Amino acid sequence: MTDLVVHNAAQVTTPTDDGGMMTTQDGAVAIEDGVIVAVGPTDEVTREYPEENATDAVDAAGKTVLPGFVDPHTHAVFAGDRADEFTAKLKGAEYQDILEEGGGILRTVRATREASRDRLVESLLARLDVMLAHGTTTVEVKSGYGLDVETEMKMLEAIGEAADRHPIDVVPTFMGAHAVPDDTDTDAYIDRVVEEQLPAVTANDLAEFCDIFCEAGVFSVDHSRRVLEAGQEHGLKPKIHADEFERLGGSQLAADIGATSADHLLQSTEADITALGEANVTPVLLPGTAFSLATDYADATAFEAADVPVAIATDFNPNCYSQSMEFAIELACNGMRMSPASAIRSATVTAANAIDRTDGTGILRENSPGDLIVADVPDYQHLPYNFGVQNVQTVVKRGEVVRHD
Amino acid sequence: MTDLVVHNAAQVTTPTDDGGMMTTQDGAVAIEDGVIVAVGPTDEVTREYPEENATDAVDAAGKTVLPGFVDPHTHAVFAGDRADEFTAKLKGAEYQDILEEGGGILRTVRATREASRDRLVESLLARLDVMLAHGTTTVEVKSGYGLDVETEMKMLEAIGEAADRHPIDVVPTFMGAHAVPDDTDTDAYIDRVVEEQLPAVTANDLAEFCDIFCEAGVFSVDHSRRVLEAGQEHGLKPKIHADEFERLGGSQLAADIGATSADHLLQSTEADITALGEANVTPVLLPGTAFSLATDYADATAFEAADVPVAIATDFNPNCYSQSMEFAIELACNGMRMSPASAIRSATVTAANAIDRTDGTGILRENSPGDLIVADVPDYQHLPYNFGVQNVQTVVKRGEVVRHD
Ligand SMILES: [Zn+2]
Ligand SMILES: [Zn+2]
Repeated sequence: MTDLVVHNAAQVTTPTDDGGMMTTQDGAVAIEDGVIVAVGPTDEVTREYPEENATDAVDAAGKTVLPGFVDPHTHAVFAGDRADEFTAKLKGAEYQDILEEGGGILRTVRATREASRDRLVESLLARLDVMLAHGTTTVEVKSGYGLDVETEMKMLEAIGEAADRHPIDVVPTFMGAHAVPDDTDTDAYIDRVVEEQLPAVTANDLAEFCDIFCEAGVFSVDHSRRVLEAGQEHGLKPKIHADEFERLGGSQLAADIGATSADHLLQSTEADITALGEANVTPVLLPGTAFSLATDYADATAFEAADVPVAIATDFNPNCYSQSMEFAIELACNGMRMSPASAIRSATVTAANAIDRTDGTGILRENSPGDLIVADVPDYQHLPYNFGVQNVQTVVKRGEVVRHD
Repeated sequence: MTDLVVHNAAQVTTPTDDGGMMTTQDGAVAIEDGVIVAVGPTDEVTREYPEENATDAVDAAGKTVLPGFVDPHTHAVFAGDRADEFTAKLKGAEYQDILEEGGGILRTVRATREASRDRLVESLLARLDVMLAHGTTTVEVKSGYGLDVETEMKMLEAIGEAADRHPIDVVPTFMGAHAVPDDTDTDAYIDRVVEEQLPAVTANDLAEFCDIFCEAGVFSVDHSRRVLEAGQEHGLKPKIHADEFERLGGSQLAADIGATSADHLLQSTEADITALGEANVTPVLLPGTAFSLATDYADATAFEAADVPVAIATDFNPNCYSQSMEFAIELACNGMRMSPASAIRSATVTAANAIDRTDGTGILRENSPGDLIVADVPDYQHLPYNFGVQNVQTVVKRGEVVRHD
């Protein structure tokens, strides 16, 4: 039995396996057992899969069908928020002032340590709802506001429980090495990450990836190598926050150890980009971070010139309160000057690569997961052209309509 | 009989008449006959206006109530779109290339001349729906894609008909002097605007304001003075697109003739700002235009330093496809570095001043129009902090719930 037929779409647009994009006018998609069984012109698809025989059908007349978005970099589980710091920064406060008043990341750590696991689950579920409304069907979520073994475990357990209860596929990443807690020094903290946190997290099978904030004044390239290699020994695939403020060498490390992704990359050189491309590390750019800080964007065109496809992500966290991949696409175009087609590839198939989902996630074709969106636009270019509004109207996960405005 | 009581709001936040902002925790608003009769703590308001006696009630627990947004600068009636030019620009096309291929504003003029009035009405109504969903309860809409008397009239008639059929208050502006059509030269076209278009438009009472694009290579300060003074003689209040790309002197002209607003103002000097302030001309900044072109924003802080309050607007047009005042507020903060409180004033009471609505529009207080929004945020700072998503949930126009997600 067909789960769902989406038909009559003004266009069905999808990345292809060979790095291109394909648009079908008056298109349709059929899904069975959660997997796409047909993509093509409506008359062809519905001849084989008539909508009246399907459990559900969506008439997408005048609208555009795209793969569900993949958000490959978020810090979406935390307690409290930092809206007051946002205001303080707009009024001219320096980061140092905010730290002196007890603000910044360690404030989120305190709030997250105090929060119950249930409260973390509930707030994460509410955030996943917002992400879903804007088209995200797969999301990566990192720990890293615990900085002690109990809270890192609690965060990852909350991610697991929210994943069980929500239609979005949630991919958990252990990021104990997000900051240094205030009761210790960096070297001693790295010992705790490697000797206490990693074994506990992996013994309970709570994470798929291991990530670290490799940045001047936080964790060095040596720290990063130690943590990510220890993660690999425990079966976690490496990711790295690299070369955001200074070119410390995180990209080169990512290439060297075969990380799945390297993220931020504002300071990456041509040599870094080439190294990432050759090592098959997916670069992840985070335009929301630049938008919220009014700083420069990463140089997406340098990656395109080197033929190294980039992913984009929201970087959702209390300092970049951005839950919409639809808006990330708008920033990729309006801010980073990517073309609409490139931005959509970055938010779908390349984003899937950045979290090692190479089963066709992010591509509408036979045998791909049945994850798609219907946007109220006549053409995929309109998604970033028509900016600052919610264009996504219907979201389908594994063949089921999970959101409809 | 009370029309509506909105109660239990986490906060009711509003600009005040004296230039400040006021927040009431656990707040409520009561509306009778379309006009606000009480704003204050829920227990006080509901003692006098019990929600069970009202025609309708909204429980805003956990949410923030704000005045409805006023969008004081749009070009929202036009046929066709220019999404393909957006893509071409992202791929590196120069404006000159686009013009040579028949693109740019005159393409929109051709499409709008061809469109029936009904089609213009229908597309404008759909756009007003999107605006409303993002919190706009009053909008200014300009003509200016006709550039001949028939089409300018058709546009203004479409604005009038859409206004009659939609809950948003729509304020019509005649802007025949938006560009020079390709069948004539600038001086001859200004003659047509003054001698043909203005008399026809005002004879039929189709507009409240007269606007002109005063810019190097388009209309000079002398042209602008002639058109705006002729408009004044016909009873239209002046507005002006001034000092966007070059400092031609549009701000000074606005001050000189007592324009209601001067808009864009990217090149304004301190002297210009002072002149606008002294002449009580409301400056209107358009951050969406800069966002979509990836250029610099207007210097909002210079206006704040001079104590001249600015309005913000979407500038919605085929070259800046931006329909959300919620997003304009996000750009005012994240891009122009205004504080959340200043941005909200700019989008409400100061925006109302920019279209001469000084009846309390944009302020929640007794005797103001009953226009408000309920946003799904615990605090008004979250509106720009939580960016790129739709936070507005409920929209009330003249005491009636006209939109509820
Ligand atoms: Zn991050
Ligand atoms: Zn304009």
